[in-house]
Amino acid sequence: MLKVRIPATSGNLGPGFDTIGMAFRLYNYITFEVLAEGLEIEVSGEGAEEISRGEDNIVYQAAKKVFDKVNYHPSGLRIKLENNIPIARGMGSSASIIGGGMLLANEISGAYLSKDEIFKMAVEMEGHPDNIAPAIFGGMTISVVGIDRVDCLKIEPPKELHGIFAIPDFQLSTMTARKVIPVMIDRSDAVFNISRSSLMVGALMNGDLNLFGKMMEDRLHQPYRMSLIPGMQDVFNQAKERGALSVAISGAGPTLIAFVTGDGTEVAEAMVKAFKKHGISAKTLDLYPDVQGAVLVKTD
Amino acid sequence: MLKVRIPATSGNLGPGFDTIGMAFRLYNYITFEVLAEGLEIEVSGEGAEEISRGEDNIVYQAAKKVFDKVNYHPSGLRIKLENNIPIARGMGSSASIIGGGMLLANEISGAYLSKDEIFKMAVEMEGHPDNIAPAIFGGMTISVVGIDRVDCLKIEPPKELHGIFAIPDFQLSTMTARKVIPVMIDRSDAVFNISRSSLMVGALMNGDLNLFGKMMEDRLHQPYRMSLIPGMQDVFNQAKERGALSVAISGAGPTLIAFVTGDGTEVAEAMVKAFKKHGISAKTLDLYPDVQGAVLVKTD
Repeated sequence: MLKVRIPATSGNLGPGFDTIGMAFRLYNYITFEVLAEGLEIEVSGEGAEEISRGEDNIVYQAAKKVFDKVNYHPSGLRIKLENNIPIARGMGSSASIIGGGMLLANEISGAYLSKDEIFKMAVEMEGHPDNIAPAIFGGMTISVVGIDRVDCLKIEPPKELHGIFAIPDFQLSTMTARKVIPVMIDRSDAVFNISRSSLMVGALMNGDLNLFGKMMEDRLHQPYRMSLIPGMQDVFNQAKERGALSVAISGAGPTLIAFVTGDGTEVAEAMVKAFKKHGISAKTLDLYPDVQGAVLVKTD
Repeated sequence: MLKVRIPATSGNLGPGFDTIGMAFRLYNYITFEVLAEGLEIEVSGEGAEEISRGEDNIVYQAAKKVFDKVNYHPSGLRIKLENNIPIARGMGSSASIIGGGMLLANEISGAYLSKDEIFKMAVEMEGHPDNIAPAIFGGMTISVVGIDRVDCLKIEPPKELHGIFAIPDFQLSTMTARKVIPVMIDRSDAVFNISRSSLMVGALMNGDLNLFGKMMEDRLHQPYRMSLIPGMQDVFNQAKERGALSVAISGAGPTLIAFVTGDGTEVAEAMVKAFKKHGISAKTLDLYPDVQGAVLVKTD
């Protein structure tokens, strides 16, 4: 029996569309156990009722890609998913179960693939690297998808940085959230993001959290997704007024993340209140970055 | 009498269009001397015959902006420009004389403005920050132009990194080079540059020059400017085959820069040869990064 712990992630971080993500200390746990025959899938926790127990289950689909690649076919398989990351909220739920499923499938079949190979396969399945990278490696990651490789750099954020996640009580699929973004964009908007994304990386590496926060502006997706997240601008304004370093859409939304140092209670309350003004109820999570990424954990 | 030394710069570095630049150890020298009356301008060196000696001289125009700002009006002024940076070749000639002129004007009028204020004024005059920032501060710089401020981060490149500049014997004005770049671009091209630019910064800060080189690809300007620089693709290929870490257009071109560590002679020869095959004669300069930026130098 093998078990993996894999973190929640916030992708599309500020100007780093499809590029930058960060892992946080909220974890899904996945267990694989080889059976004599059959496929048994148990799911508990967040969105348990929505998740398929059949062969189209994403954990199984991810695992199958690895099994096919290394030509290993378990006689049967029991998959347990303890789901703590909210589904379709922009917190990297799918990246965690794709990455986790692939890592476990690799371990159980003899660990023929390196972590980098798993990473590349997971990026292909997910379609973008900004959640997969931090889910697997932890920290803040910058990923570049090339023709035949995916490069990734991991940065460990300063210890005092944490994120207040305001999670509205509605789902937003990445597919829906992608549809509102134009395919053609103004060159000046590209430069806006290129410059801020580059400087945001430098600022974090220097431990300059004020500059890091200031750079977290975006023109590639946030302005277009505002229509899908009622109250977004208000939540941004309120969080900043209460001292947040920056606010961004987490992944494709609808969750919004405010970065803070020190006590984040006021920021959290202000975000919930601002959402409420627009008829949206939201809960908050105060999470510190994870720097370990996916790790195998002991089982009984 | 006041004299400033200000370096050549390579802007638009790889994916860092209008954002990233690097200073190199090739310098223009500018001297200001207050006269009883009149404006005298002496120019020597590169392109001396092309440079105006009248009130439309760029050094004077830059200085005048500072004089007007601090409300200082010299009775008369002698400007000496020792021009070592080739003109209209993509090596930051205009940034060096704008930055240098403004810094000297500030010094001579009582140094009322900070270096950051001069930086912001110079960016406004030049229209983009990627040459001005390294010319003033040195090193590799990442600049972000905001509504009312320009942020800039300076990174000192590893000591072993240097650049081979292949400088063709024709000029290319930034204005002409800008006209070929489309105003609307594909979102995927923006992501291509955002990801590489961000990772390039991280790689340089980590001293990982191989990764730094690998990230130096661009889809925002280089593909479009290829038509203005005969032989460009060949020069790129030849330099890489001879071991260059990366090759890029320097600024708006037509100069091409290959980054190397160790002896760059073969790379330089291959670049000249490749240009020649396309009927272009080029000279090369092997330059190490400058990390001081603009400095006041002693005069007799």
